[in-house]
Amino acid sequence: MNQQQNITTFRVRYSETDPMGTFYNSRALEWFECGRSEWLRANGLPYTEIEARGVFLPLVESHVRYLGRARYDDQLELTTKAFMDGKVCIRFEASIVHADHGVAVAEGYTIHVCTDHEGKPIRPPVWLTSVLQNQVES
Amino acid sequence: MNQQQNITTFRVRYSETDPMGTFYNSRALEWFECGRSEWLRANGLPYTEIEARGVFLPLVESHVRYLGRARYDDQLELTTKAFMDGKVCIRFEASIVHADHGVAVAEGYTIHVCTDHEGKPIRPPVWLTSVLQNQVES
Amino acid sequence: MNQQQNITTFRVRYSETDPMGTFYNSRALEWFECGRSEWLRANGLPYTEIEARGVFLPLVESHVRYLGRARYDDQLELTTKAFMDGKVCIRFEASIVHADHGVAVAEGYTIHVCTDHEGKPIRPPVWLTSVLQNQVES
Amino acid sequence: MNQQQNITTFRVRYSETDPMGTFYNSRALEWFECGRSEWLRANGLPYTEIEARGVFLPLVESHVRYLGRARYDDQLELTTKAFMDGKVCIRFEASIVHADHGVAVAEGYTIHVCTDHEGKPIRPPVWLTSVLQNQVES
Repeated sequence: MNQQQNITTFRVRYSETDPMGTFYNSRALEWFECGRSEWLRANGLPYTEIEARGVFLPLVESHVRYLGRARYDDQLELTTKAFMDGKVCIRFEASIVHADHGVAVAEGYTIHVCTDHEGKPIRPPVWLTSVLQNQVES
Repeated sequence: MNQQQNITTFRVRYSETDPMGTFYNSRALEWFECGRSEWLRANGLPYTEIEARGVFLPLVESHVRYLGRARYDDQLELTTKAFMDGKVCIRFEASIVHADHGVAVAEGYTIHVCTDHEGKPIRPPVWLTSVLQNQVES
Repeated sequence: MNQQQNITTFRVRYSETDPMGTFYNSRALEWFECGRSEWLRANGLPYTEIEARGVFLPLVESHVRYLGRARYDDQLELTTKAFMDGKVCIRFEASIVHADHGVAVAEGYTIHVCTDHEGKPIRPPVWLTSVLQNQVES
Repeated sequence: MNQQQNITTFRVRYSETDPMGTFYNSRALEWFECGRSEWLRANGLPYTEIEARGVFLPLVESHVRYLGRARYDDQLELTTKAFMDGKVCIRFEASIVHADHGVAVAEGYTIHVCTDHEGKPIRPPVWLTSVLQNQVES
């Protein structure tokens, strides 16, 4: 009954491409961020609201598998899921395919912890974990 | 007698930092690229020369562990190693620490294959593997 | 009867913000590019089609006035216009405001010339100028 | 007797280039920032020190003229000057040429005001203007 995943679409910007004619590798992580933003918003807890409550979600790990090329202006579809990963980590999983024909572009995950504004680790607050714990890894 | 690793230093740019007061996560991959460039140059095979011979080295995988914060203008030291990873993949390992006091910032790796200009996979040419195969994983 | 301007909306990404809590200055130029892409598409000549015909539109000049702050996740509205500027230059004008309340964020312009793939200047082809010359500077 | 300009060199990163085979236009503004950082450091007032004193220098205007191409790994030389522009604005001028042969790449300027952490405009403090007012526009 809970939203298990969020799907968002976007176009590759010229600024995101490189001389190989595809997106530069680090852009995948920037796109994953867009997916996290939309997942959180769709689940009623925009990231701005999280930071407004004094909680930050810096990355402790990221992983990307590059599966196919994507050119400037290609329309891509990004699917994002989120889970608690143990008691302190939050895991977002991302998958990017071509919106037109479904061919895979990239997939990966990011792992986050909760910190205060100074970067000091804190326990994930209940209002955050309750949104995430309802998710079941598929 | 072979160069096993390359060390380069750089400063964090303001454009690379975010509201958390540290570098934005995708910058680590951009910095890793600088390390690959310097490793290849130091081993006599600049990446420009590789592309001039019609060979490209797109990523198939990237992994980053975020170990500590780095603020605008902090001077960071990036250590890069490179190996053949099987017969077709090239693996670059990167480690970033604060140049002043050695505290860890990030570490990770990227895995690459060889392609032609169209992105079609090709066998790694001997002039490339010979530079890499002399490396022994430490 | 011709479309004089294109309006598109987008959200500020976390990767685009900096420790001042607003977008980093160079992002305005990346956003202006999105506006150019949408203007061209709306006028029946996507930039991919222009490059497919062997014509490139590199910038010769850019100008930005920063008028207000925009935070992560703020929804911005970008208005783009385009004109021929003399016989060889193309001028795109951009204006960014907050979508919610219309407060100004940035405005500016970019000036472009036509080149071939090697970057050699060429005369703007008729199929391109005919799209642009119908525009009247407001 | 005062340092009138700062010169710094850097290499174009792959992440900064685009399918046209030159740097993406917004990178010029990121490079200009590096020049400002080095100018301020060379004049005894690193930007980190300015922010530590509660003063920020956001841009109110930027202008770039794109004069030539620069490819991945090209070594560029950036010359930066700084002046007070009236009583409240600070103007940095930047010029980028190829380090090897001096061919021009880009030139432009950024204009800044002083604000507090909230982005509220403040009068430029004397310890800042004294560094800048000694400069004579050449």
